[in-house]
Amino acid sequence: MAEITSYNYRITPQDVDFTLRASASSIISYMLNVAGIDADNKGFGVASLQDNKHTWVLSRLGVEIMRQPEQYSDIVIDTWVNEFNRLSSTRNFRLRSGDELLAAGVSQWCMLNMESRQVVDMSLLKDTYEKAMVDTPSPIAAPARLRPAEYAASSERPVVYSDIDFNRHVNTLRYVDMIFDAISLEAIEHNQGMRIDFNFIAEALYGEVLRVAHSEEGNVWQFEISSNSGKTLCRARVEFK
Amino acid sequence: MAEITSYNYRITPQDVDFTLRASASSIISYMLNVAGIDADNKGFGVASLQDNKHTWVLSRLGVEIMRQPEQYSDIVIDTWVNEFNRLSSTRNFRLRSGDELLAAGVSQWCMLNMESRQVVDMSLLKDTYEKAMVDTPSPIAAPARLRPAEYAASSERPVVYSDIDFNRHVNTLRYVDMIFDAISLEAIEHNQGMRIDFNFIAEALYGEVLRVAHSEEGNVWQFEISSNSGKTLCRARVEFK
Repeated sequence: MAEITSYNYRITPQDVDFTLRASASSIISYMLNVAGIDADNKGFGVASLQDNKHTWVLSRLGVEIMRQPEQYSDIVIDTWVNEFNRLSSTRNFRLRSGDELLAAGVSQWCMLNMESRQVVDMSLLKDTYEKAMVDTPSPIAAPARLRPAEYAASSERPVVYSDIDFNRHVNTLRYVDMIFDAISLEAIEHNQGMRIDFNFIAEALYGEVLRVAHSEEGNVWQFEISSNSGKTLCRARVEFK
Repeated sequence: MAEITSYNYRITPQDVDFTLRASASSIISYMLNVAGIDADNKGFGVASLQDNKHTWVLSRLGVEIMRQPEQYSDIVIDTWVNEFNRLSSTRNFRLRSGDELLAAGVSQWCMLNMESRQVVDMSLLKDTYEKAMVDTPSPIAAPARLRPAEYAASSERPVVYSDIDFNRHVNTLRYVDMIFDAISLEAIEHNQGMRIDFNFIAEALYGEVLRVAHSEEGNVWQFEISSNSGKTLCRARVEFK
């Protein structure tokens, strides 16, 4: 068993939106960065997996944001892994300003063979993982499973250079941007907190054209991003408080 | 007179492109961040100007990149102001890894009254500024003045939430992204360094549609971004070595 690990971060100008608060996309970016650094520090990061042609893939993410921190404020990000089985690993996050909980997240990851693009049985990491497990429950409910919905509107755009990661796949954070770009500025400006659920289903490549479909019903926005090759790439749901 | 000031930075995963090196957009982002922090530290930052309804606006930028630093590497950013007159102020940058010069930049700024949107005579900052001036020449040639060119291709996209800053104008870094998104992946992947010149001419607002026109001739790419309201927003030129 291990302890929760904490990382310090300062909100920089490129992290904030027009309200001068860290955007939901930036908050998720902090979580994913810390996930990478913490996994590396504990011996199961992408760097050590790549020797075996394996990589981590984010399959589901649930995030609750209570208050978006302001530009130049200092925050602490706590992270810990508390579940692990053959097919999925659960990593948790808390963003704090002192004792104030700003946001919390639960992420579910699987391991992929980069050559076959197939999911890998994670039993091989059992010993390393058990040493890193923390006996603290997830801070919020697990990510919801999102089913197809009726979408009232959609827009299209190609995958470009600034979207792609080292696999030449669209970076997870771009999906977060695409979704918030479809929400009205008023809903973002006046939000009193939100719950975000993401299901990541397939990967999009440079050159594909993405379609972002959405529907809005009261304070709930639902999204599906698909590609012109017919794949559903991800679904998301944002509920404003 | 003052000394050159240095800031430390670590290249994080959200800063790198598919080559796992900091993108040109990230390198420019570091420069602009450091410009903001250094101006604040020296008493002429946006925070102190806002009391007087004034803000800094970047008018021209020249950047040379010798080598893009890799993910997780530690860099030092040097910055200093060495020219100042009624209408323009020049701030310089060097990005270093130890003694190796990774990139250098020269930026020219004017001051804007946020209510009238007119350029302000900067004589009022003369005393504060003179204390901050550094007697070191710019590390590279000043930003070029870019004239309209013949553009062979163009694409359009709307201004969205993730593009805008606290003025609800398109963030400077989005123009950098748009330009590099129009360049071929091969040119970016195999680049041996580059010189970038930007002229920022007018501001675009949320809801406008942007047109990115470009031409390519050998190793030189030229760009003009305009809006559907007919304004030319910026011109840029990228020359790969």
